[in-house]
Amino acid sequence: MGRLINYNSWDEKFKAPFGALNIKDEMTINVLTNKNYDIYNIYLVIQGENDDLSTFIYEKIELKEIGNIDNEKTFTCKVNPFNKVGLYFYYFEIEANINGNTEKLFYGKSKEDGQAYGYSYDNINKYQITVHDDLKVPDWYKDGIVYHIFVDRFNNGNRNDKPLNAKKNTFIYSNWDDDPMYIKDSNGDIIRWDFYGGNLKGIINKLGYLKKLGVTIIYLSPIFEASSNHKYDTGDYKKIDPMFGDEEVFTELIEKASERGISIILDGVFSHTGADSKYFNKFGNYDSIGAFQSKESPYSSWYNFEEFPGKYECWWGIKALPNVNELDPSYMDYIIRSRDSVIKKWTSMGVKGWRLDVADELPTEFIKELRRELKLIDKDAILTGEVWEDASNKISYSTRKNYLVGDQLDSVMGYPFRKNIISFLRNECTSLELSNNYMEIKENYPKEAFKSNLNLIGSHDVSRIKTELNCDRELVKLAVITQMTFEGIPYIYYGDEAGLEGKTDPDNRRTYPWKNEDDDMVDFYKNAISTRKKYKALTNGDTLFLDIKNKDVFGFIRFYKDSDEQDVLVLINRSKELQQIKLDLNADILEEIPLKYIPKKYGEIIDKEDDGVFNKGRFNIGINEKSFRLFTLKTNNIE
Amino acid sequence: MGRLINYNSWDEKFKAPFGALNIKDEMTINVLTNKNYDIYNIYLVIQGENDDLSTFIYEKIELKEIGNIDNEKTFTCKVNPFNKVGLYFYYFEIEANINGNTEKLFYGKSKEDGQAYGYSYDNINKYQITVHDDLKVPDWYKDGIVYHIFVDRFNNGNRNDKPLNAKKNTFIYSNWDDDPMYIKDSNGDIIRWDFYGGNLKGIINKLGYLKKLGVTIIYLSPIFEASSNHKYDTGDYKKIDPMFGDEEVFTELIEKASERGISIILDGVFSHTGADSKYFNKFGNYDSIGAFQSKESPYSSWYNFEEFPGKYECWWGIKALPNVNELDPSYMDYIIRSRDSVIKKWTSMGVKGWRLDVADELPTEFIKELRRELKLIDKDAILTGEVWEDASNKISYSTRKNYLVGDQLDSVMGYPFRKNIISFLRNECTSLELSNNYMEIKENYPKEAFKSNLNLIGSHDVSRIKTELNCDRELVKLAVITQMTFEGIPYIYYGDEAGLEGKTDPDNRRTYPWKNEDDDMVDFYKNAISTRKKYKALTNGDTLFLDIKNKDVFGFIRFYKDSDEQDVLVLINRSKELQQIKLDLNADILEEIPLKYIPKKYGEIIDKEDDGVFNKGRFNIGINEKSFRLFTLKTNNIE
Repeated sequence: MGRLINYNSWDEKFKAPFGALNIKDEMTINVLTNKNYDIYNIYLVIQGENDDLSTFIYEKIELKEIGNIDNEKTFTCKVNPFNKVGLYFYYFEIEANINGNTEKLFYGKSKEDGQAYGYSYDNINKYQITVHDDLKVPDWYKDGIVYHIFVDRFNNGNRNDKPLNAKKNTFIYSNWDDDPMYIKDSNGDIIRWDFYGGNLKGIINKLGYLKKLGVTIIYLSPIFEASSNHKYDTGDYKKIDPMFGDEEVFTELIEKASERGISIILDGVFSHTGADSKYFNKFGNYDSIGAFQSKESPYSSWYNFEEFPGKYECWWGIKALPNVNELDPSYMDYIIRSRDSVIKKWTSMGVKGWRLDVADELPTEFIKELRRELKLIDKDAILTGEVWEDASNKISYSTRKNYLVGDQLDSVMGYPFRKNIISFLRNECTSLELSNNYMEIKENYPKEAFKSNLNLIGSHDVSRIKTELNCDRELVKLAVITQMTFEGIPYIYYGDEAGLEGKTDPDNRRTYPWKNEDDDMVDFYKNAISTRKKYKALTNGDTLFLDIKNKDVFGFIRFYKDSDEQDVLVLINRSKELQQIKLDLNADILEEIPLKYIPKKYGEIIDKEDDGVFNKGRFNIGINEKSFRLFTLKTNNIE
Repeated sequence: MGRLINYNSWDEKFKAPFGALNIKDEMTINVLTNKNYDIYNIYLVIQGENDDLSTFIYEKIELKEIGNIDNEKTFTCKVNPFNKVGLYFYYFEIEANINGNTEKLFYGKSKEDGQAYGYSYDNINKYQITVHDDLKVPDWYKDGIVYHIFVDRFNNGNRNDKPLNAKKNTFIYSNWDDDPMYIKDSNGDIIRWDFYGGNLKGIINKLGYLKKLGVTIIYLSPIFEASSNHKYDTGDYKKIDPMFGDEEVFTELIEKASERGISIILDGVFSHTGADSKYFNKFGNYDSIGAFQSKESPYSSWYNFEEFPGKYECWWGIKALPNVNELDPSYMDYIIRSRDSVIKKWTSMGVKGWRLDVADELPTEFIKELRRELKLIDKDAILTGEVWEDASNKISYSTRKNYLVGDQLDSVMGYPFRKNIISFLRNECTSLELSNNYMEIKENYPKEAFKSNLNLIGSHDVSRIKTELNCDRELVKLAVITQMTFEGIPYIYYGDEAGLEGKTDPDNRRTYPWKNEDDDMVDFYKNAISTRKKYKALTNGDTLFLDIKNKDVFGFIRFYKDSDEQDVLVLINRSKELQQIKLDLNADILEEIPLKYIPKKYGEIIDKEDDGVFNKGRFNIGINEKSFRLFTLKTNNIE
């Protein structure tokens, strides 16, 4: 008998516009009924959400029947623009004749294909609508290629290779290619910090390399003075760590990067400071009177003491990282509002954006105010955040985090992108499941946020992609080509392109292997990036995920609506065999995009007329084992 | 009633010659009886010792009565030259009338004053006689000032301060003055080695300094290739560790030192090798086939495996230090006998001596053969050893170690010197106890061995003297002036002269504080050393410990028999008050030896006639709180 109704939120025949909704826009919902059932009425029920996460009925709309062909009825409704940004959920209430009885049924969503049905409210998943304000992310960012540098590990720019201004009682690795490790006591606490000596001058020296690679944005791990090598334990928000350089060299970095079309983004660590800081000053290393030292400290209100001074609130229980009260007015002033605030100081120097560390732990008001002030200084500056999950519906500490509705973040770290592609390449999900997982994010995120999603396959907090993929270089390339052809901003973790391996921290923070690079992999990255840049559809286009009916082949089309730009077909075969697939494209395949490192032998491409010309219609395409193919398409009406 | 007899082995009236006995010499023993007792017979009983440490009666001699004044009888005997070198013990058997009964009594030694009596054999301490062969220690050594350098921590001679040839996966301290530490895992095992970067070139650069200080002998901690910073885990006995330099720079060191009258002594570590060595090769870092790798290894016979290869015998259970079978012929050949043996290779290059690490754990035959071969290459080369206790009667692993009887060591590390002077300066013993402890060593050691005893107050295995003395610089100076005026070779642990502090390993291995020296202390050392060198009695003279009858004042006279050299009186006051002492010197005080750093105010010196002239006789001398005085004396008959 099939489903009672037909509805797919991912198809604009049913829901228009697709995905998240601008608060100014109305929305159309269409439902088709199954002709085998007698459907009397269909209601669209939209729920809103209170601050305490409880829901309320925002609107209940009766759909109108507007067509009936052989008892297959079309119901429709228009939803007026929402009155408030935020997260909404909806489902359908259906009155129908089931086996001679009139019953009320609830219809929701299935994760697999965007559809689901059931007889009870409890058993359905509601559809999500993210309602957002205008969110325009600057093009320089959306069009960019991000390169994440963990400063101590990238390059030492000193002529003699000695670290700059090494800190008292710390260690320097004897060799640039030594294995990183933490030096801990028997309790597992870090007792001495280890450094390789990477610094800002070292980055300046490698700008030429980064430019050639295709990088347009450098995201720097924290650079402000701090005891550790990672510097998430800020000692002084207004000072470059002396091991990394000083303001002069930082200015030089900004200028020289800018000359090469490269923007600099900083890591803003505002949920905690270091215990060894100007503000807390636990060890008396600073001249200030820190909150740990005296209740009369000007910074006392920043911190929470259970017992002064020994017991204080700290980040994940780490005593070196006392938590701050972000909303404390003097902290807000210091970081955001005052004339020489941290954000203003560095942004005025030319920093083009900030990545908020542990964004989940920052109060919404803090992020909003930071954004407001940031955009006042530079409307083109961007704000991105560390979020590990779907950022549209993240709940953190019992609060709904509406990061992406327009007044908070421009973008987030795209960990779901990484998780899903790794899962696919490891045969842990099918290509359809992969598409659906990506599609769900695409549906939930405002368009601009999805286009500026940081599609990463590595970072300082996760294993290196090469290690995740068991050092299979061909699979790594599939992850990279997916990343470089995907909607959103490719985000490269330094050294991944050079073939670095590494398990989790600290192994994922090995030094960049200068002179020992995997040159083939570097070239692959270069080619993939330049291909991305060559096709506007790849840089900026929309995405149509294809249902290829082959669990091993993931495919999508990047298309650029309403233009003469060429669309691009991407096909990824993870399996150890050549896969021959059939595609009904409703498009012409124009030509194969040559990538220097495409394997030599391919499956054939045969069009349905078999006349040697790629015509609109059904194609038979072979993709080599653990390989990929890219084709340009010609069509203006991808649907 | 007093003691039954009067006998003091430290007084040549009773036993001549004093102390240890050359096997060629005869010995005279005199005993005086107490006139209140009726003594019939006195027997001298001399015990020899078997290999299993059981004793036998070597000789029992009846003493002859040769005088009787008011029932105070003099008994005497001559003992013929002993028939074998080694350790002997003696006591007296006395037949006397006690309360009307004839009783047999045993007389032995008391630790306090060299005398003791008792009624049963079990309760007496026997006197020791060390019988030795000719043992002539070269003058260059006996007259020397030793400076012990822990190479990694002394000085980096590279222009750029970078370590030479840093090893893979090791750490360099960020700063020369960082605090040393071990990097261990949770089991307490060292997992990565830490280096400061001191090297041989650095020593060459400081030869001028050492020469000015007065040093004539440099003892280097091990310099052969090894993984660790201390290099007691030898990797290759025939190669200078690349972090320290190479043979070329080592030759330069020997030559340039020699030009300044400074000899080089090496640390010979022959009880074990490193697991990471050419010989054991546990980690495959060497090209050789190591004993750990194959039973067919040419080095297999050097090691003992309980289970091959996982369970092997190692030094104090440390897996990084597999023990060797020192008597294995191929090991003996390699280290000692073959034409290019380790000993021959380095001694031929100009090395003037060896300090045997953990000498107690080396078989006697190994030491003897090493000595024989060493003296064949260079009869002036010396052999000293790491022994922590009285080396004359040391028992190690149930074997009597006759290190000093002539065919083994020239000298040992004088840890008892350190222990005793620290004990005195900390008020843990009286000055008389201190004298007696020193006297016991002097009695037990062959004269040449005592004169070449390495009088140390610091080493890489004990806390720094400054730390032992609670950072009391005045007390440190008393330890130093004692060391520099004492019989035996002053042995300076690098940096002690510059005011370094440090608890035990690794804290006692801090780097030499170049440019942060305690200049006053360096000058004090220089003065004390030059004073030692100025007076032959201090360099080479005999010692008379004074019984000053003041527990806080330690004093002795260094004298040079049968010459016109000036003798020197040394007085050390450890207390916080000026001490006024009386001395009956049987000598003229000639003049005070000025030391630049002698405190300004003194107690007076008053001779017994109070006529302002220092005359032979009783002197009244004041010594300031925590200070010392040195005087030259004129007498040819110190007794």
